[in-house]
Amino acid sequence: MKVLFLNGPNLNLLGQRQPEIYGTTTLADIEAATRTHAGDRTEVEFRQSNLEGELVNWIQEAAEEAAAVVLNAAGYTHTSVAIRDAITATTVPVIEIHLSNIHAREEFRHESLLASECAGQICGFGKQSYLLGLEAALSIKNT
Amino acid sequence: MKVLFLNGPNLNLLGQRQPEIYGTTTLADIEAATRTHAGDRTEVEFRQSNLEGELVNWIQEAAEEAAAVVLNAAGYTHTSVAIRDAITATTVPVIEIHLSNIHAREEFRHESLLASECAGQICGFGKQSYLLGLEAALSIKNT
Amino acid sequence: MKVLFLNGPNLNLLGQRQPEIYGTTTLADIEAATRTHAGDRTEVEFRQSNLEGELVNWIQEAAEEAAAVVLNAAGYTHTSVAIRDAITATTVPVIEIHLSNIHAREEFRHESLLASECAGQICGFGKQSYLLGLEAALSIKNT
Amino acid sequence: MKVLFLNGPNLNLLGQRQPEIYGTTTLADIEAATRTHAGDRTEVEFRQSNLEGELVNWIQEAAEEAAAVVLNAAGYTHTSVAIRDAITATTVPVIEIHLSNIHAREEFRHESLLASECAGQICGFGKQSYLLGLEAALSIKNT
Amino acid sequence: MKVLFLNGPNLNLLGQRQPEIYGTTTLADIEAATRTHAGDRTEVEFRQSNLEGELVNWIQEAAEEAAAVVLNAAGYTHTSVAIRDAITATTVPVIEIHLSNIHAREEFRHESLLASECAGQICGFGKQSYLLGLEAALSIKNT
Amino acid sequence: MKVLFLNGPNLNLLGQRQPEIYGTTTLADIEAATRTHAGDRTEVEFRQSNLEGELVNWIQEAAEEAAAVVLNAAGYTHTSVAIRDAITATTVPVIEIHLSNIHAREEFRHESLLASECAGQICGFGKQSYLLGLEAALSIKNT
Amino acid sequence: MKVLFLNGPNLNLLGQRQPEIYGTTTLADIEAATRTHAGDRTEVEFRQSNLEGELVNWIQEAAEEAAAVVLNAAGYTHTSVAIRDAITATTVPVIEIHLSNIHAREEFRHESLLASECAGQICGFGKQSYLLGLEAALSIKNT
Amino acid sequence: MKVLFLNGPNLNLLGQRQPEIYGTTTLADIEAATRTHAGDRTEVEFRQSNLEGELVNWIQEAAEEAAAVVLNAAGYTHTSVAIRDAITATTVPVIEIHLSNIHAREEFRHESLLASECAGQICGFGKQSYLLGLEAALSIKNT
Amino acid sequence: MKVLFLNGPNLNLLGQRQPEIYGTTTLADIEAATRTHAGDRTEVEFRQSNLEGELVNWIQEAAEEAAAVVLNAAGYTHTSVAIRDAITATTVPVIEIHLSNIHAREEFRHESLLASECAGQICGFGKQSYLLGLEAALSIKNT
Amino acid sequence: MKVLFLNGPNLNLLGQRQPEIYGTTTLADIEAATRTHAGDRTEVEFRQSNLEGELVNWIQEAAEEAAAVVLNAAGYTHTSVAIRDAITATTVPVIEIHLSNIHAREEFRHESLLASECAGQICGFGKQSYLLGLEAALSIKNT
Amino acid sequence: MKVLFLNGPNLNLLGQRQPEIYGTTTLADIEAATRTHAGDRTEVEFRQSNLEGELVNWIQEAAEEAAAVVLNAAGYTHTSVAIRDAITATTVPVIEIHLSNIHAREEFRHESLLASECAGQICGFGKQSYLLGLEAALSIKNT
Amino acid sequence: MKVLFLNGPNLNLLGQRQPEIYGTTTLADIEAATRTHAGDRTEVEFRQSNLEGELVNWIQEAAEEAAAVVLNAAGYTHTSVAIRDAITATTVPVIEIHLSNIHAREEFRHESLLASECAGQICGFGKQSYLLGLEAALSIKNT
Repeated sequence: MKVLFLNGPNLNLLGQRQPEIYGTTTLADIEAATRTHAGDRTEVEFRQSNLEGELVNWIQEAAEEAAAVVLNAAGYTHTSVAIRDAITATTVPVIEIHLSNIHAREEFRHESLLASECAGQICGFGKQSYLLGLEAALSIKNT
Repeated sequence: MKVLFLNGPNLNLLGQRQPEIYGTTTLADIEAATRTHAGDRTEVEFRQSNLEGELVNWIQEAAEEAAAVVLNAAGYTHTSVAIRDAITATTVPVIEIHLSNIHAREEFRHESLLASECAGQICGFGKQSYLLGLEAALSIKNT
Repeated sequence: MKVLFLNGPNLNLLGQRQPEIYGTTTLADIEAATRTHAGDRTEVEFRQSNLEGELVNWIQEAAEEAAAVVLNAAGYTHTSVAIRDAITATTVPVIEIHLSNIHAREEFRHESLLASECAGQICGFGKQSYLLGLEAALSIKNT
Repeated sequence: MKVLFLNGPNLNLLGQRQPEIYGTTTLADIEAATRTHAGDRTEVEFRQSNLEGELVNWIQEAAEEAAAVVLNAAGYTHTSVAIRDAITATTVPVIEIHLSNIHAREEFRHESLLASECAGQICGFGKQSYLLGLEAALSIKNT
Repeated sequence: MKVLFLNGPNLNLLGQRQPEIYGTTTLADIEAATRTHAGDRTEVEFRQSNLEGELVNWIQEAAEEAAAVVLNAAGYTHTSVAIRDAITATTVPVIEIHLSNIHAREEFRHESLLASECAGQICGFGKQSYLLGLEAALSIKNT
Repeated sequence: MKVLFLNGPNLNLLGQRQPEIYGTTTLADIEAATRTHAGDRTEVEFRQSNLEGELVNWIQEAAEEAAAVVLNAAGYTHTSVAIRDAITATTVPVIEIHLSNIHAREEFRHESLLASECAGQICGFGKQSYLLGLEAALSIKNT
Repeated sequence: MKVLFLNGPNLNLLGQRQPEIYGTTTLADIEAATRTHAGDRTEVEFRQSNLEGELVNWIQEAAEEAAAVVLNAAGYTHTSVAIRDAITATTVPVIEIHLSNIHAREEFRHESLLASECAGQICGFGKQSYLLGLEAALSIKNT
Repeated sequence: MKVLFLNGPNLNLLGQRQPEIYGTTTLADIEAATRTHAGDRTEVEFRQSNLEGELVNWIQEAAEEAAAVVLNAAGYTHTSVAIRDAITATTVPVIEIHLSNIHAREEFRHESLLASECAGQICGFGKQSYLLGLEAALSIKNT
Repeated sequence: MKVLFLNGPNLNLLGQRQPEIYGTTTLADIEAATRTHAGDRTEVEFRQSNLEGELVNWIQEAAEEAAAVVLNAAGYTHTSVAIRDAITATTVPVIEIHLSNIHAREEFRHESLLASECAGQICGFGKQSYLLGLEAALSIKNT
Repeated sequence: MKVLFLNGPNLNLLGQRQPEIYGTTTLADIEAATRTHAGDRTEVEFRQSNLEGELVNWIQEAAEEAAAVVLNAAGYTHTSVAIRDAITATTVPVIEIHLSNIHAREEFRHESLLASECAGQICGFGKQSYLLGLEAALSIKNT
Repeated sequence: MKVLFLNGPNLNLLGQRQPEIYGTTTLADIEAATRTHAGDRTEVEFRQSNLEGELVNWIQEAAEEAAAVVLNAAGYTHTSVAIRDAITATTVPVIEIHLSNIHAREEFRHESLLASECAGQICGFGKQSYLLGLEAALSIKNT
Repeated sequence: MKVLFLNGPNLNLLGQRQPEIYGTTTLADIEAATRTHAGDRTEVEFRQSNLEGELVNWIQEAAEEAAAVVLNAAGYTHTSVAIRDAITATTVPVIEIHLSNIHAREEFRHESLLASECAGQICGFGKQSYLLGLEAALSIKNT
């Protein structure tokens, strides 16, 4: 069994810019922590892309290779009907996560175009959002 | 250490009406599952009220007795400035949870008046939302 | 058989303030007229509360004791998701009534948060709205 | 004394199309039931038209021949300022009725352009809406 | 088999006013071209009315005489709930067409009240919109 | 030369209902006053209809018989795209008038769907609006 | 008797800029035509200012010196609560005029903040709007 | 004579949480200062509740015991039609106050549902808002 | 010490027009009452202007001569970014007052462009608003 | 001559997922049917991409190789200003098509950002939308 | 040749208030820097006014004396139709500048009523905005 | 030192389509003019892409190689949260430019999602916008 973690635009910068503000945790660090947390319960794979279409591709292909998708679509969360349609079409459950609490940020980040097509949403817990996303994915597969 | 689970209006009906639609899991069942999941990591307490003001009272008092609040405010999520102000005023972290994916329901349920004052939001995972809420609470306290 | 009439905030004041404007009919007068109108077709019970949560409680409990609810939620009509959710959850038909024609008053009174969950709506006929609500309740139970 | 029942567009189709969905009750059936329900308390007349202007004409003329109008304007409820102005101008009370609960249908059906000019509104009780409309008309005339 | 082409307000003026702007093609010319295009695949009938209610009547009666309706409701497209309800009630497929690209005109023409009740929409191709509407009608009947 | 005065729904009631409120001036009185005011400068013709489509017909035909149209579309002013399109298509100047100041009435009467297609708008002067409309028509034809 | 014509910002430019577009009629030309049109029926006075406050002053003082005000507030029509309040406070009737048809221009020009406080509105007839405004003023004073 | 000060949700927390931010002034301190400020001009009574319905009750009863109400409804200011209706119904003047300048806070706090039913509004002066509210109450009673 | 009272457009008319409606209290009367109320606690100066720019000038200069500004900007309250910016820039506290309860008047008067930049807002108490404004100013200076 | 069919995100999935819901027709099947339908009237080429920028590229290049474009932009229809600008810039006519009736789906799908820049729109006819798009393209080229 | 720099309300305060926040650069400093930057390429003139009407006057007169206007309308940018109309009427190019990035400030500052009538907009570069405005003016005149 | 000019979708078409409308200046011409204008003050590099994600990549990498970015995001200006987030994250100043005056075009182009994260905005000066962008970049680096 595999859980696929898909990461959208600018998440490759995590921990690499302005560490005094954003901290020094990189996406690789989060990946490692997630893998540790998963232990032998499931395989974990992380991908990141700045291209909307590549995220669409990965969601389309997920059904062939993974039991669940944990998706941090970042900036595409609020604008991408294409990603939304890919989620609707796939047979794999998709769990939406965000590092920050999107409901406490700019008005246009409060509404997610993707949320209604996902199993659920987890946001605001920083790195921990990934671990909670993993737990949610595992519990869905075990239901 | 104690984590306080506060439940808003109509959650006392869980599992007691139309089981063919909503299932037979009661709030007491969820409480038991949450306590089991917590093990000896933390004490767990569940309360439920249909009164907005009683929820305000409990959030106000939480700082004296608990390390974190997990809040399923149900229908008050979208209308209560009073609960919002209580969350803002308390020194205890509050984690917002929902059984259903509120972003996939009626338009007026998409925006939570409480979300911006909470640490984060978890929704859509049914009973599992409570267990994820507990994990989130524990991770915040251990940071 | 019993029809339960639930009355929301400020309806206890009916006929007691500014009789030159609002008339002198009290809620007790309406209750008496409704009971007379019902005759031996059904038992009639009136309750009134200024608390949103108490109305939620009564709607929750109605299924155990009544065949139908006639609800004048007054000011909570336009703001209470909690009452709406209680109506959705109950197995008893709920009939929404109003003394005044809410569609002829302030803009914010035109939309009822409760209406879509009720069997139907009757408004604008003063005391007569209660008698029509009773007729509607009886006809639904006899269908 | 006469109560005039005016029926707007498409109500002539009632019970004639897709009976498996809409039932087999025709407008003529409703008219008969209403007449029976009225007994010798009042004369009852039913008219139906698909033309907005014809409904305007009938409302204009109602004052000469009827003590009250019960109006199911159907699709014109939400779009006709002309019918609204006719209601405002007439000296006869007009009672707005609908077969379905318009507040539980598409967003554009929630607001009635006519409601603020009518004595009151009754909706959601199917055929029974006509009988309740009759009762409301009689009670207004007897006040 | 017959396909019924219903034309709304002002379409009787086509080609008769300001030919230097609108060209000289009349509705009769379009009818002839449509009939030629249909050949012996189907009978074709054209009607035009400036009255909303007459269009409602024709849509109501279409099921008795035609296999499909091609509807250019012109100005009523954006305002007529009555026509919308007639389309919903009929058992014949209705295809919405427009001579001009309504999405490239004034803001209020972008949204069609009828579209969601029709099989599909074709707009912007001038006279050709009628021929495409005929093809669509034929293909639906042959499915 | 002829100026055609077209009057929309409910204007046939002028002066016939509630004279204590609306006065006793009838549409025939206004027609007489307008004819007197015109003197031998122009022929004057008044028509009134409660049907949207009949007004469309008259505007379509105006170009054959009149030098200008003065239009009081009453309730159709705010809802009729069909009348708007007829005005756009005609080669005769159309002058929009209203008895009352529509900008001082309900919100939905502030915006006229017809105004942008007319030569100009005159409103708020009661009977005098017709005489001013006549003057405007004459001045346009003499330009 | 005197009718006071108040002209707002930029009307001093009339006929002085881009005559190929706006023509060569100046405000002085309009004043002369208005005076001629008035004949000995009334005295006529024209004033123009680019300052909102000066227009407020003039409207405040008008009651002492004039029987009616004809106001072309130009750009302040859509933004000035101060002028609106001056019109509300004065005891002299104020008639709103515009050279162009404001309802056929940019969206923000469709709504006049002043209109509901004026006797009526005349727009779209160019220079003729002033003569019609004069006629309206005279008829109001003679009522 | 008595002036009744009613305080809404969370005001019981004043000065008890995060004194480094909100200061150390408690509601009891404000009550004492208000009583001192009143001197022997009027009796002063303070109440506080987190329940919307209890505030409705107190406003209903105020007419029997007080000459004026000074109301800080806190979070219910923006959401409670029930409190609004209680204010409308009472014969005692109600003065709305707020510690903070609600117009300088989140968008949803700018509009008060209660304001149009109160005598006036005072906000932004901290503790001093209570003293000004007292002065306003006294001046209204002495008019 | 001096408190500067700045008064916006049309306030010079107070008490001079329609005394049967607005009363006979003039701005000079209010000034006298305010000076009496101030006693020797502070110097009081009143100014009034109908020009937005002059109010901007006075607010700019206030810091040199006064300890606080009490501002009744009247019609400019809802439209003037220029006055708002002057308030933001000054180092003197500005207190916003209104004679009437602006929240109970037309919709466009509910939102004040100035409020968020002022210390606080007092409205609805008539002449008394000025005395309360004075008290607020004194209390701020003494903090 | 060649007609270029450009297909946007997720259309590569057609017929490959959940055949019990969406049927088993693939994009390749549609391509074959379109080619058959075209016969020797025109060459037909199909392309599909999940990347917004690639669709922009193809539209830019179309003028060099094709006589018309038939575009099913899928999810980008409602969000892509970039594709809109490419359509505006190209000299080749672009015909917008959709498999489903976008006007009968979620609110955000009703408005197409592309439509005003295309020759026309065809939607709701499933596979047949492609054949109608081809006919439209041919007729435009033959005009 | 001359470039006229027009400065709106409150810009006379630049550098004179709260230098710790806004710096100490005055409008005179900016004028000097602009003159130096211009060198002998063009004459430079600076004016400042807090009155909307005076800015209207200056823009009207600019065509007689300057080759271009650089306009920092400050608070009037968002509210003045009068200034907008003056810009539309003048034959001189007008370049809109702002010291701050208006798109990063309050919502109501994002939309400029003037922008669509100006040649272009430059904002966010502080004093440098004036120098860039000068360069833009020179390049337009040399085209 | 290097200034990086990033160009979004469709800018590669500049000067290559419809030269009679858009002129014949290509992006290469603008690049050459910018390089000449820069002289030896800074190195200049131009890139163009139709892919949103590639623009995100370039902005992410800019900090390693350039002192400032001048960004013409074209169609992505109004839709890309991903580009906005990249600008927020980078440590290099980003200057937003546009060839045309976006505030004078379609409504949806008036608001830029990027503007609040950029140093400033320059638009409307055609090719000159690039040279002004360069000057702005240089002045920021020299501050």
